[in-house]
Amino acid sequence: MRALFIGFGNVGRTIARILTLERSRFPGMSPLDDLVPVAIVTRRGGSLVDTKGIDLGLALEEMDSRGRFPEGHPGYTDITGVEAAGSLDYDVIVELSTLSIENRGEPAATHIRTALSRGRNAISANKGPIAFSYRELSSLAKSVGKKFLFETTVMDGAPVFNLRESCLKGCVVTAVDGILNSTTNYILSRMEEGVGFAEAVKEAQDMGVAEADPGNDVDGWDASAKISALANVLLDADMTPLDVDRHGIAGVTPADIRKAAESGKKLKLVCKAWKEKGKVFGKVGVEEISHSHHFSLVSGGGAVLRIHTDLMGPILITQENPDLYDTAYGVLGDLITLRQLCY
Amino acid sequence: MRALFIGFGNVGRTIARILTLERSRFPGMSPLDDLVPVAIVTRRGGSLVDTKGIDLGLALEEMDSRGRFPEGHPGYTDITGVEAAGSLDYDVIVELSTLSIENRGEPAATHIRTALSRGRNAISANKGPIAFSYRELSSLAKSVGKKFLFETTVMDGAPVFNLRESCLKGCVVTAVDGILNSTTNYILSRMEEGVGFAEAVKEAQDMGVAEADPGNDVDGWDASAKISALANVLLDADMTPLDVDRHGIAGVTPADIRKAAESGKKLKLVCKAWKEKGKVFGKVGVEEISHSHHFSLVSGGGAVLRIHTDLMGPILITQENPDLYDTAYGVLGDLITLRQLCY
Repeated sequence: MRALFIGFGNVGRTIARILTLERSRFPGMSPLDDLVPVAIVTRRGGSLVDTKGIDLGLALEEMDSRGRFPEGHPGYTDITGVEAAGSLDYDVIVELSTLSIENRGEPAATHIRTALSRGRNAISANKGPIAFSYRELSSLAKSVGKKFLFETTVMDGAPVFNLRESCLKGCVVTAVDGILNSTTNYILSRMEEGVGFAEAVKEAQDMGVAEADPGNDVDGWDASAKISALANVLLDADMTPLDVDRHGIAGVTPADIRKAAESGKKLKLVCKAWKEKGKVFGKVGVEEISHSHHFSLVSGGGAVLRIHTDLMGPILITQENPDLYDTAYGVLGDLITLRQLCY
Repeated sequence: MRALFIGFGNVGRTIARILTLERSRFPGMSPLDDLVPVAIVTRRGGSLVDTKGIDLGLALEEMDSRGRFPEGHPGYTDITGVEAAGSLDYDVIVELSTLSIENRGEPAATHIRTALSRGRNAISANKGPIAFSYRELSSLAKSVGKKFLFETTVMDGAPVFNLRESCLKGCVVTAVDGILNSTTNYILSRMEEGVGFAEAVKEAQDMGVAEADPGNDVDGWDASAKISALANVLLDADMTPLDVDRHGIAGVTPADIRKAAESGKKLKLVCKAWKEKGKVFGKVGVEEISHSHHFSLVSGGGAVLRIHTDLMGPILITQENPDLYDTAYGVLGDLITLRQLCY
């Protein structure tokens, strides 16, 4: 199975590490032993193309040590993602670039659209294409008989989309709710411990949890993209993050946190999507959660999703303390699924 | 798809209700519209055999109103489960009888063994065959190219076994722990509220949660059967409930509960299985759980399972308040899986 990787940041490099340096720790990865990475395209660090297969271990070493591929590397090129998706020969595109709300999920959606149009499979770790263009891209995949997988976009590799597909057969999902953005959850957890908002944001940045511009998280955009993706896939909606009733955590004060604590509650940024009279609604906002509610124990970088259906459940999926290996696994699991189905 | 049902108690009747009286509430059940129930065999209420298909609605009405099938019912017979499994023509046996620890999972295991040996598929809601004979029965299913499914045996239809199969591909499960027996969890929850042990047991019996003889639950046998099933399937063990280091809740006093509460803890009957130096161990026993631990919020009839793997997780699956529909769904989901795979 020949793979074109778009992006080689934290997630791409963790995938490469698992498949090379740390391969012996993970015996279950054997279905991917014949994976051939035919190209790695980055936006600022150069790109590599080699139809015989790129040495992932060497690419990892170079990116880790220099922050880019050296121009002398065999197969070095300055091809763009769109060019690579449209011209190279591969079986699956693996889209690992980051979410852009202002560009409405582009150029990731175009990479995937291009790959599917050419009869290739697509895996996305970028939630933009699912949050903004799911109905179009999933129809396209269906029409060409190819797979479009994106498990890691919500709660990393924890079962969400594949759970509905494989474990809730025959159930109709009626609503979902949960805590899905780790940066805001970390900030709120630290504020409970008495740390100020600005200081908690800075801590999250220093830990590499929040971006340099934390607006995507703090203003609820990342959470809105996730609830939009969930609504589109699980509730058959056709929405975008712009349709979500979105409230961030920027206005939350230490006094708010204290007030909630006095009545035995915690403040959490809760995401929900639900059906009402045939229409699907999405909402992100701070809620007071009682100490007896499962969401109250999801602290720091944890996450939880509760799925309501017409027959089974509700059930909750909880991640205690996810890290980059969980995100990388979401992509690796999709690659294994594809390998079993198609090659 | 022709089904032979062994047992027509609470679970069987709920399945029948969902597929007949309440069918319009559950549009996702359409893959089962051509299910043909060719026989329903009960131990004390008579049996029905009809190769053209039993009227499930009528069977349900009779069992609900009289507690047995009337001898005048078309196709009435006194065939036993073993005879039916060995002589009737069907595509899948659906084993809905109750767990027998003293009989080591029999006669359910024999029903399934007989069906598989004759090249039929098997679905079990009875955990006995998985707790006592999983390795043998799964090998047999593999050797005849048929399916052996049993999703509802642990945490009803909440994703457990199908989750490992479909959502944790490439991960090696290293340990599981959780709260899996609702009767004991209900009793401990009531004791926290000041109710005495004997009274809490009686309440559970009156609610129909505990059996008339509550020993299976109180002494940890049901929990041991579940952890044995989990160990056998997820950790590739070959154990039985007799191999589990088993401690029930019979010795727990109100003073124990108070003492735990004073140090901010709750007592829970925790089930675990784990690998150590190539061997798999199982344990059931009361543990003090801190209020910040996810298990502490699983009260009453709720359940939780935490899965640890080499790469992904840990993740937790939690049921808030399961009922008979969840148990029935576990079987219905397996029937849909079979329908999609085979017919």
